[in-house]
This record gives sequence, structure tokens and C-alpha cells, in this order.
Amino acid sequence: MKISSVDFFYLSLPEVRDIGDGSQDALLVRVEADGHVGWGECEAAPLVSIASWNCPMSHSACKPVSASVLGQRLDNVDDIRRINACVREHSFDLLQADHTLSGIDIALWDLLGRKLGEPVWRLLGYKRSFPKTAYASQLFGDDPQATLRRAEAAARSGYRAAKFGWGPYGRGTAETDAAHVHAAREGLGKDIALLVDAGTVWGDDAAAAKKRLAALEICGAVWLEEPFVNGALSAYHELSKSCKTVKLAGGEGCHNFHQASAMIDYAGLGFVQIDTGRIGGITTAKQVADYAVAKGVQFVNHTFTTHLALSASLQPFAGMERDNLCEYPFEPSALGREFTAGKIPPDANGQVCAPESPGLGLEPDWVALKKYLVEVEIKVAGRKVFSSSRVPC
Amino acid sequence: MKISSVDFFYLSLPEVRDIGDGSQDALLVRVEADGHVGWGECEAAPLVSIASWNCPMSHSACKPVSASVLGQRLDNVDDIRRINACVREHSFDLLQADHTLSGIDIALWDLLGRKLGEPVWRLLGYKRSFPKTAYASQLFGDDPQATLRRAEAAARSGYRAAKFGWGPYGRGTAETDAAHVHAAREGLGKDIALLVDAGTVWGDDAAAAKKRLAALEICGAVWLEEPFVNGALSAYHELSKSCKTVKLAGGEGCHNFHQASAMIDYAGLGFVQIDTGRIGGITTAKQVADYAVAKGVQFVNHTFTTHLALSASLQPFAGMERDNLCEYPFEPSALGREFTAGKIPPDANGQVCAPESPGLGLEPDWVALKKYLVEVEIKVAGRKVFSSSRVPC
Repeated sequence: MKISSVDFFYLSLPEVRDIGDGSQDALLVRVEADGHVGWGECEAAPLVSIASWNCPMSHSACKPVSASVLGQRLDNVDDIRRINACVREHSFDLLQADHTLSGIDIALWDLLGRKLGEPVWRLLGYKRSFPKTAYASQLFGDDPQATLRRAEAAARSGYRAAKFGWGPYGRGTAETDAAHVHAAREGLGKDIALLVDAGTVWGDDAAAAKKRLAALEICGAVWLEEPFVNGALSAYHELSKSCKTVKLAGGEGCHNFHQASAMIDYAGLGFVQIDTGRIGGITTAKQVADYAVAKGVQFVNHTFTTHLALSASLQPFAGMERDNLCEYPFEPSALGREFTAGKIPPDANGQVCAPESPGLGLEPDWVALKKYLVEVEIKVAGRKVFSSSRVPC
Repeated sequence: MKISSVDFFYLSLPEVRDIGDGSQDALLVRVEADGHVGWGECEAAPLVSIASWNCPMSHSACKPVSASVLGQRLDNVDDIRRINACVREHSFDLLQADHTLSGIDIALWDLLGRKLGEPVWRLLGYKRSFPKTAYASQLFGDDPQATLRRAEAAARSGYRAAKFGWGPYGRGTAETDAAHVHAAREGLGKDIALLVDAGTVWGDDAAAAKKRLAALEICGAVWLEEPFVNGALSAYHELSKSCKTVKLAGGEGCHNFHQASAMIDYAGLGFVQIDTGRIGGITTAKQVADYAVAKGVQFVNHTFTTHLALSASLQPFAGMERDNLCEYPFEPSALGREFTAGKIPPDANGQVCAPESPGLGLEPDWVALKKYLVEVEIKVAGRKVFSSSRVPC
């Protein structure tokens, strides 16, 4: 096959609010090759990623992403790896390119899987797709009472693990934060795993983060996620030395393999969290998963949005039995919910598996999505370099 | 003062060639506050950086860069640092934002310096601007003979140091690469410092890079630059253990402080190379320079384009006497040459200083630049989110 077209669909709620909910918009990618179709999603600012697809070349290492994708052969998994490497090489001074590549790479795996009648995880060399405990990922409430109610709701929904993050956490005193963590534990009850996400709130201030450890350990939190900005290796490492039972989790901001491997090697992480829609797609996420296994760090997906993104993020570690946690979009926006007609629901044990059906096993639901489409037009020197494609329904 | 407007000017040669010359286009930034003006440059894909300025918000940590800049107070250097931190916080999921911020941050320093009648380096706390040995930065020739001629030309031009990079280096055998390095040394003669830039050609393959060390050491090369992709900490570290006299240089791809400090802490570098137009501007580059000093690593600018970029890149380490090398655009394109009427020419000893005049001490030459202007128009949902500003002449 030969890649004949790549289309980007910018989807958004009519109103995007100033909250930590990444499911309010989406950038959907469609790749076509010899009549076969694959779908992927960039976890990225849609307009900026679109601009990187077809911007004018700046120099030999700052080319538009399209230069390394259109017209390429696509017959097997090595072709996908080659295309991924080609984008990295020819666009490495184009910062946004890694995010744009992510959605394209996912779509390439989906396309090849559909063509060959195999789920992506099997193309990645796995024999089976192991169940993972889905953790309900949600925001902290505005106050501890609200957090309590959210935790109770998560428990009622049958989840065996729940994560609370962002919102007020880390923005007030250590006491208020402790009250939120205690409220979350109370709402969940004893048996549901509790995870906490600080959303990089302490920058690289290890002392501020250390003040929060006691409450997390009293409440039996499994991990403290992103106390610091991505790549703040020394701060992570310093904090990790003060952790007794709680482990550190991080890595969602990594946009290439080397950033993720540095987090694994130097940050003292217990869990490395990879967003397939940012790291460079399934190709790079699988590389990180293999590296994490070799280094004894647990791999976890980062997914807050759609079930298409969820399937893509499950593939890279689907066959790793030990790596048994899965971030699960618990309360996505209407756009996130309506994205695919098919879903990956947790079973009676609160577990999910990467689908058995070909490719990613899910497709965008265009009847529902049509209303969210945002038209984009970009002109450079009077020439149209991008205009939104027609909706395929 | 209050920031009233930020304008982006996309400038480009009529034809951009597929070569490693980053001076073929440019993104110039103008900031205005209370009638005062400052100029900066992003070393970045222009269209994509423009898109990140005013794209729609995706969520609370993925806002357009404009949201953290327009309307902000600008009275002192702490305001610039606050604005820089604000962009990082509110746009940290917008990958391109760091490159866009870079040009804005530079323009803010320029504006404040002009307003206060001080060169930027004095605002940074330096007492004087020390001379740096300018190294002529250029591409390897297509064959060793061509490299020889380029080295002879550099020597004739009075430079005391010259760097050769990219082109065929690392793409053929170790023997061919050695021939290029020997040709460069022959052309330069004994007394001119030789530096070599591999342009990330070996990815993270330390074994391939090791094969090149012998020729570099025989020819007395000061450094081997970017043998690997930015952030490949383990490969850098492994290679550094095999270096006897030649040192490793790298870091130009870093787009925030933590990436640069990780290179300083873990990569075994002798030199950290920072592009003020990528790292987040003068604010972040100064942070890295201070960290490098503390860790015994030499700070060097990365500059391949204009003299406005050169001035911006000299400021962060202008007052550091020991850090005495400066990358100097030796053969920029016509656009690079015509960018400013004023220049920073090397003196009789081949040395340059950050200018003594207020701000960056140089201004864009609009009479020359006008012909390079590329019009951009971006529409989202029928609404114009960007259209090029009028040329200020």
C-alpha cells in the first residue's frame, strides 16, 4: 500500500471552559492507503498540530510532517517504524511535530491492523490482551466535601481504583490537601485503590511536595502523580527518597522516547505514564513500555478523553500481564462520550482489555461528531496550505 | 507599562532549500507597551509558532500563548520572569508554546532595556560584557576538498575558531568523516580552534560515534557537538567516557530549563549550547547559564541566523568571563545578512561582545526586510484568529 491522504478533523465543544478537562476538544486523524482507512487521535492543541502538518519547510530538519508521510509505502509494521523515524529526523526542529506524529502513527497501526484483520496488540507481538484494572480518572472537588461525593460516586460505579487530580490540590495549604486526600479515601472505602495527581503544581519544589507525603501514606495512596513539571529529574529523584509506601508517577508530557527513558532512569519513578497521543504514537509508546519492563518500572497509559484514545493507549502494554493498571476516562465531556459508538466498558471486576477486533477495534461516530466539527483554513502567501476536509458521512 | 500588542512577522527567502541552513526563514516578534517597542526572534517554524499565539484554548493547561502575555504589567525584570512562568504554566500541553515564548521573552527584555536605557546584560545583573571568541559556524563541504576550501576561507577571514557540521558528516564511513576533519584542520592551520557538529546523525548509537573520536582527537577538535538527538542522556554519557581530549557539546534542542539541566547533570557534557530562541528566551537561557557555571560546564550560545538573534544569545552569558566562545553566523542567507542594519562584527582578535547600547542594541531593517514578508491568515470556525500585521515602514 501507499499512503494517499491524511486528514485532520478538529472537534470541539461549543464552549471550552478554563478547567483541567482535556476532553473538551480533540484532533482526529484519518489516514488512507489503497482504499484502507485508519483512525488516530493527537492529544494536542488541534490548530497548532494542523499547522505543523503542512507548514512551509524552514530547513532540512524543520520540514512539515506531511513531507515524511504522504506517498510512503505501508505494507508492514517496519514501514510504520520507518515513517515514525523519518518524521523525527526531518522535523526535529519543529517542536509540535511529535504531537502531530502521534495521531498519524496511531492511525497507521489502526489501518494496518484492519487490513490484516488483526488487533494492533497482536501486530506488536503480543499473544494476548490482559485485563487491566481501570482507574476512574477525575478532578478533585472544589472542597473536600465535593471530593468526598465524587469518591462515593466512583465507588458506586464499581471501579476498583480511582484517581483524583488537579483542581485545588497543591494550591492551598498542606492541611487542605490532606483533607482532600482523606475525603477521597473516605468516599472510596478501604478496598478501592486511591491515586493522586498533583498536575505539576509544585514546579520543581521538592520541599513543598514532601509536606504532602504523610497524608498520602496514611491514606494508602498508590502513587503521587506529577508533583513536578515533566523532566524535572532532580526534584523527582529527591522526592522519591522521602517516599516510604507511596510511589511517584509521571511522564505524560514526554514527547519522545529519550525523555521517557530519562524519567525511567533518573527520576525515581514507580510508574511511567505515557500518552500515546503525545509520545509519538503506538510505535514510541511500545518502545517505552519495553524499556520500562527492562528497568522494573510499571507502565501505565495516560488517557483522559475518548475510547479511541483509550484503545490506542492500551495497545502498547496490552500483553504485559504485570502492568495491570489503566487510566480510564471516568467523566469525559459529551464530545468524549459520543466520540465512538463502540466502547471499552469495565467488566464486573472493574477491568478492561484492549479490544480483540482488528486495528483499534473502535471507529469514530460521525453521526454524533458532525456537530462538533470546527472548520479551519490556513493561507500562507495567498496559498491555502490547509482547509478542513469534508466529514465522511 | 502594560503589554498592548504582540505582532509576528514571518520572513522567508523566496525559495527555501532542503539543506541544514536555518537562516532561510525567520519569525520576528514585536512587543509594544505604552508606546515602547521591543524585538525578538523565535528560532522555530514560523507558521506553527504563529498558530500557537492565538489558537483556541483546549483546557486550562493548553491555552494560547497570548492568554498569558497580552495586558500583562511590564515594569521590571521580575515582570518578565513572571510572564515567562505564566506561559509555561498555562500552555504546558501546547508543545510549540516554548518556541513561541522564546521570541516574546527576548522582545520583552529588549523593550525593557530600551525603556530604561540599559543593555539587556546589565538588566541581567552583569557589570560588563566580556569579549568572546567568535567561531565561524558553517556546513561541511560535499567532499573533503570542499571542506578544505571552506576552512581556508574561514582562516582568511580572521576567525580564531571554526565549526563544521551537518552535510555528509556521519552519513558515510568513519574514514570519510576522518578525511573531512583532517581537511578542516589542514585548511584552518594549527592555531585556529576546530569544532565539529554531527547534527544528531547517530541518533543514540554510541558505538557509531565512538568510531569518529580518534580523528577528532588527532586533529585537536575542541568538541564533538550533537552526536545524538537531544536528551539521549545515556548515549551521551557512554560516549563521554571514551573521550580523552575532545569534549561533548549539546543542548540546542532543549526547550525548557529542566531539559537543559538534565543535559548538564547526566550527559557528560563539556559545553552546553543554548538557543535563546528555543529555550524560552533570555530569561530561561540565563537560568541555564547560572546552572552551568555552578556545575562546571561551559555555556555557549547556539546561533546560526541573524545578528538580532546573536545579540539575544550573547546576553545570558555576556558577563561570564570564563565562558568565552560564541557561535557566530558565518555565512547566513541574504535574509540573515540583511536582517539588521547594525551588526556585531568580530574585532581584530576575532572576538565579539554583546552590544553596549540599550536593549539588544540592534533593530530590524524594515527597508531590507519588507521583500521577505510572508502573509499569513488563519481562520477557525469562520473567525480570523491571525492575519499578518502591516510592515512598520
